[in-house]
Amino acid sequence: MNSAWWLQTCLPADEQMRDLALERQQQLTKPSGSLGRLEEAAVQLAGLQRRVKPRVDQVAIAIFAGDHGIVAEGVSPYPQEVTAQMLNNFVNGGAAISVLARSLGAQLEVVDLGTATPVADLPGVRQARIAPGTRNFLKTTAMTDEQGLLALQAGRDSALRAHAEGAELFIGGEMGIGNTSSATALACALLHCPVSDLAGPGTGLNAAGVQHKVRVIEQALAAHGQLPDDPLQRLFCFGGFEVVALVGAYLACAQHGVAVLVDGFICTVAALVAVRLNPTVQPWLLFAHCGAEPGHRRVLQALQGQPLLELGLRLGEGSGAALAVPLLRLACDLHGQMATFAEAAVADRPA
Amino acid sequence: MNSAWWLQTCLPADEQMRDLALERQQQLTKPSGSLGRLEEAAVQLAGLQRRVKPRVDQVAIAIFAGDHGIVAEGVSPYPQEVTAQMLNNFVNGGAAISVLARSLGAQLEVVDLGTATPVADLPGVRQARIAPGTRNFLKTTAMTDEQGLLALQAGRDSALRAHAEGAELFIGGEMGIGNTSSATALACALLHCPVSDLAGPGTGLNAAGVQHKVRVIEQALAAHGQLPDDPLQRLFCFGGFEVVALVGAYLACAQHGVAVLVDGFICTVAALVAVRLNPTVQPWLLFAHCGAEPGHRRVLQALQGQPLLELGLRLGEGSGAALAVPLLRLACDLHGQMATFAEAAVADRPA
Repeated sequence: MNSAWWLQTCLPADEQMRDLALERQQQLTKPSGSLGRLEEAAVQLAGLQRRVKPRVDQVAIAIFAGDHGIVAEGVSPYPQEVTAQMLNNFVNGGAAISVLARSLGAQLEVVDLGTATPVADLPGVRQARIAPGTRNFLKTTAMTDEQGLLALQAGRDSALRAHAEGAELFIGGEMGIGNTSSATALACALLHCPVSDLAGPGTGLNAAGVQHKVRVIEQALAAHGQLPDDPLQRLFCFGGFEVVALVGAYLACAQHGVAVLVDGFICTVAALVAVRLNPTVQPWLLFAHCGAEPGHRRVLQALQGQPLLELGLRLGEGSGAALAVPLLRLACDLHGQMATFAEAAVADRPA
Repeated sequence: MNSAWWLQTCLPADEQMRDLALERQQQLTKPSGSLGRLEEAAVQLAGLQRRVKPRVDQVAIAIFAGDHGIVAEGVSPYPQEVTAQMLNNFVNGGAAISVLARSLGAQLEVVDLGTATPVADLPGVRQARIAPGTRNFLKTTAMTDEQGLLALQAGRDSALRAHAEGAELFIGGEMGIGNTSSATALACALLHCPVSDLAGPGTGLNAAGVQHKVRVIEQALAAHGQLPDDPLQRLFCFGGFEVVALVGAYLACAQHGVAVLVDGFICTVAALVAVRLNPTVQPWLLFAHCGAEPGHRRVLQALQGQPLLELGLRLGEGSGAALAVPLLRLACDLHGQMATFAEAAVADRPA
């Protein structure tokens, strides 16, 4: 284990390449700015990838899975076995993210950090099991420091594999019944905002279920009121293993020069933790979408994240980020392949 | 010329196929509704394409181009020659829509309905020239009825070609310096709303330019105050040839069973005219995006259109619709390829 590797400065964006890309955008045969957010994305990627014409052909998707002790408090309508069942579904190609990865030609890896139901030797699942789920964070911290550091490292390992394979974009996904409760508690602890502002139905709680979830998280936050104001301690207190792995993956991507496309509510909370731990990660984060979970918009705002899509998604698995990949690819195609005014002999100025 | 072909009833959606697709959605391995707008799109396409598993592999894009007499009033910062120059750029592959069509593997046709600068025998441009631009609608109607019917037919011809070639989705685009003024006047005439609510910078007017544009359109609306309350007369009074062609194309698509993906402000105004002329077209219209032009949101609301994207686009050419194609393709992939709960042995019910 490298000592505090997560605090090491992330790579800086290449400002000169960014400026050259911006200059190119202004010469393309369209009114300046008329491709809106796609122009910004292409210019941002140019700075991150250190080339005037960025590409996102090589996309690596890693899904981190783990179970949550907090489900003992009745915060999810789904049984905990679904986490392990979905691991099967991911590697068998039937889950949403499996279909999307195939359609996009993206690499998909599935990392088991600890499901309650063991998934022994399931082909295609990478084993990084820490425990059969976290502890119930209403009673104690969700994980020990040692467990947390293992999860952080598992995320980093995934990012390093993506980097070694030439990924131009990294997408983290998550699977874990109960993990909106974990993410909500974590976000409230970091943002000091009321639980009722952030808590939502997750995979499908009704109104009474959401009220109960709010009370459980409020009690847990009160119980841990003495925590030091340290993002890592809060992460280990409320996080799932998969949430911690996402934090580790985002930080390692930014340290090694791989742009990150952040998925939904849980991933955005992981991004918030990453930024609080190490603010130099921020320029590497692109935000794919604003989902249906009410806390998502609030956490995006805290990160000043401008999502590309808003489609009422609430699935997780990295699916929202995968859906935004074609927009980034087309943004790169437009940026790289459109003719300039000079090339096309089109008037570029007001008459 | 068929007499009043545009009033003939459009094909109905297949409600049974729609219901079967909805049923399938509810069996897929995800919380019900968690793919948000993509689930709705897949179900809508299933009804329109009369198959449980719709596809949008075959996409036809037609760009209609024409010039506008109203530019004599100084409503655009760009010279009118840009319309013809951009036709060159479309067929030479350097324009935004050319790049997008190539990346998407979509058919692209470019139809010249009447540029001010003739584009004689430009290879790849389909000739349907009516006049070297419309007349100045501040002084008279933009076109005669005869010209209008020719433009409507040119749009229909394009839709019929798309249908004959097996298009599963039709995108209309437009090019014509000054055409936000035409579309704004038309929308105000149909929606009876103040010009200042809808008028915007178009390709890049400054605030004073927008004010001038508002005054010109207000004067034109006042000058034509005696028009009968007939969408076709309003269309011919204020429309550009390309706007009329879009109306004809949308109606013919819906009559022949090709789903339509509506692009930006000008296309959405054409969709509004089409719906006012023949309300049976409505179910065939999918809305790609809400752009930067302020009137776009207002016209979408009048159509109860729910756009898929909001990226601050203001280019036209069909570019926003092209950008939404991958979302529809992925929606179809998810709908068609995800495993059901039974297939994947995943628990589908609350514990």
